[in-house]
Amino acid sequence: MRLSRYFLPVTKETPADAQIVSHKLMLRAGLVRQTAAGIYAWLPLGLKVLRNIERIVREEQDRAGAVELLMPTVQSADLWRQSGRYDAYGPEMLRFLDRHEREMLYGPTNEEMITAIFAESARSYRDLPRTLYHIQWKFRDERRPRFGVMRGREFLMKDAYSFDLDEEGLKASYEAMFVAYLRTFARLGLQAVPVRAPTGPIGGNLSHEFHILADTGESAVFYDAAIEEITREELLAADASTIAKLTGLYAMEEEEHAKVADCPVPADRLRTRRGIEVGHIFAFGTKYSASMGLSVQAKDGSQVQPHMGSYGIGVSRLMGAIIEASHDEGGIVWPESVAPFRVGIVNMRADDQACTEASDGLYQALQAAGVETLYDDRDERGGAKFATMDLIGLPWQLVVGPKGLARGVVELKNRARGEREELSIESALARLSR
Amino acid sequence: MRLSRYFLPVTKETPADAQIVSHKLMLRAGLVRQTAAGIYAWLPLGLKVLRNIERIVREEQDRAGAVELLMPTVQSADLWRQSGRYDAYGPEMLRFLDRHEREMLYGPTNEEMITAIFAESARSYRDLPRTLYHIQWKFRDERRPRFGVMRGREFLMKDAYSFDLDEEGLKASYEAMFVAYLRTFARLGLQAVPVRAPTGPIGGNLSHEFHILADTGESAVFYDAAIEEITREELLAADASTIAKLTGLYAMEEEEHAKVADCPVPADRLRTRRGIEVGHIFAFGTKYSASMGLSVQAKDGSQVQPHMGSYGIGVSRLMGAIIEASHDEGGIVWPESVAPFRVGIVNMRADDQACTEASDGLYQALQAAGVETLYDDRDERGGAKFATMDLIGLPWQLVVGPKGLARGVVELKNRARGEREELSIESALARLSR
Repeated sequence: MRLSRYFLPVTKETPADAQIVSHKLMLRAGLVRQTAAGIYAWLPLGLKVLRNIERIVREEQDRAGAVELLMPTVQSADLWRQSGRYDAYGPEMLRFLDRHEREMLYGPTNEEMITAIFAESARSYRDLPRTLYHIQWKFRDERRPRFGVMRGREFLMKDAYSFDLDEEGLKASYEAMFVAYLRTFARLGLQAVPVRAPTGPIGGNLSHEFHILADTGESAVFYDAAIEEITREELLAADASTIAKLTGLYAMEEEEHAKVADCPVPADRLRTRRGIEVGHIFAFGTKYSASMGLSVQAKDGSQVQPHMGSYGIGVSRLMGAIIEASHDEGGIVWPESVAPFRVGIVNMRADDQACTEASDGLYQALQAAGVETLYDDRDERGGAKFATMDLIGLPWQLVVGPKGLARGVVELKNRARGEREELSIESALARLSR
Repeated sequence: MRLSRYFLPVTKETPADAQIVSHKLMLRAGLVRQTAAGIYAWLPLGLKVLRNIERIVREEQDRAGAVELLMPTVQSADLWRQSGRYDAYGPEMLRFLDRHEREMLYGPTNEEMITAIFAESARSYRDLPRTLYHIQWKFRDERRPRFGVMRGREFLMKDAYSFDLDEEGLKASYEAMFVAYLRTFARLGLQAVPVRAPTGPIGGNLSHEFHILADTGESAVFYDAAIEEITREELLAADASTIAKLTGLYAMEEEEHAKVADCPVPADRLRTRRGIEVGHIFAFGTKYSASMGLSVQAKDGSQVQPHMGSYGIGVSRLMGAIIEASHDEGGIVWPESVAPFRVGIVNMRADDQACTEASDGLYQALQAAGVETLYDDRDERGGAKFATMDLIGLPWQLVVGPKGLARGVVELKNRARGEREELSIESALARLSR
């Protein structure tokens, strides 16, 4: 993409209303714009990152055997009356009347709807087990939206729902999602700590939250230092034994920790850090199958109510969490897996024919090699271009200047490590073409 | 995908409330389920088709130089007050109050928001021309939702907005989108007729609707027979001359046609067919830049209000239009470009070891070759499997039965042409691996 034809409104000023670094950087780097309190438009660069996060979440859901569908954002209040949650849910639920005065709502979650959809066609044990998921915009009318997309009102969420014949099946589905979550966060370059969680308004008996460790997290997490020793490779290869190991180690969100009379972790091994909750999984049994009228025929001919779980990931919130975990004074440092472009080309002198020809050639060659590239072809000062590149955090910067070109070299900078290296154009291309 | 692990609730019964064939087939083939009046959940097979349509729409927008972003579904009423449309828009707009009693709405379109976003950063002629688009869920509270996704309330739309310095620039942007639309519909396997349209509530001075010819269209289209002679190849290679040719030929929606005193087309060349409106483009000039306060500095230093256009495609409606245009008594006949899977494998005897081994092998080989395949591995009768395959309309069916296998062959059926052919497993694989 040529920057001269793109839409990347970066700003030098730090927005006054942004308190945390991810919010500041998302506004400054032109990733999002607020359009109403807690509601954001995703500008081109931000949308690319959002789609990359979404893709990784999707791949891991598919890998776990979950099947994707898409439920609408607007739901009927009648569905929620069936489960009893229409009255139980607080003012976070955005409720309205349609033109025929029917009570509707903007879905904050989908247990009722997915159970109703599944109940319409599931007949027997042969239709189970099944895990269905979607990635859809949700709305929670936060009293005080803040921290940018971290606690916005309209947000993108992946929510999955599992249906099993019995508790044992539910446990297997729960573990499959647990593994998917460990892999997802590891692929996003994040260190996630699963903590045993209270189940809250969804109800149920087994639940874990996944917290990303970052100084600006909304709540503290207390955990056994051994959790920090689990490697990324171990998480990417996670299986039931990884879960057993992780859940065997102490980890609690602060409110729960406060209730623990005798913490089993010796003081010198007890760590506490702030955490950003990015995932939440629940095994809640038959709560919704009972209330929404879902039953299937078991092998012995009897009717049974499937055991269910639900599994959420805050897709849009993850973007904020990634930035909280990966930035420096210059701006964002994207992990390669979610970077909006892999390479940024800086043409130092758009008014110089040699620089422009070399930059154009590099751009075309990288495009041809399938390397996502943002080409700063604007007629601007080099200093401003460097600042923009650092701010938007692409993994690699390729700098084309007249002095280097005269010696037959360009400069390659690694954004994360800050290392710079002079290379011939051919070597630079070879290095960047995966 | 193995059907035994998928979620494909097909039904034999024709749903009582569905009037038109696409609505019936979308329900029967398990593409969608209605969750409230005019609101649908997209089941896995339907979602795959929707994503394929979306991908083609996106590719042609990108090809035309438009830049993708994503605006939220919920908008502030204040934005719409600025343009004067908050009061002008009818009861189709879904309005509500948030918990702080602020007036909000579910966006039916985005002229106001995109103009406000663009105005925040556009400063000079160097920031123009620019066309921005998004593909997002919209809501129009139809008084009487009907025809399934064709006239639903929550629907997926691609809407693009162009910003140009002057009328000439707007004309160029309008033509670029016109070309993108011709290519998009041709790639979707559809015959689209562009008709000169009244501009309606968006306002403006130049507008075309794109109608897909199908017997169940909501309005009639009158056009010159010469339009039918324009080939798919011509449309795929469309440029300004194609537009000149097309717009030089008479084509009017019935209400407009009725106003024409002397139709220039001789009676023997005047055709009339029902049309489904799937696209609508407008050049409306400075209406929104003026009302939303967008101006930029021109080359001569003066401030000018950009000339704008907006360009919509009904992405979810297109699925209905494609089915209306491409089905037979057995079910849907997907064009290859949007088919949810390219190949369906029918294992005629899941209880027969040879059949299952051969089917498993074909499935794995096709997966490895990157061919999207739905494998009916269920323990069901062959007849039911054939009916399902015809109903869901995958382009190719590969039938593995015990008699054929004994002779070393499988049967390959082309869904559109109904042709069947016996082939060795190797030849079938070679044929299907693109």
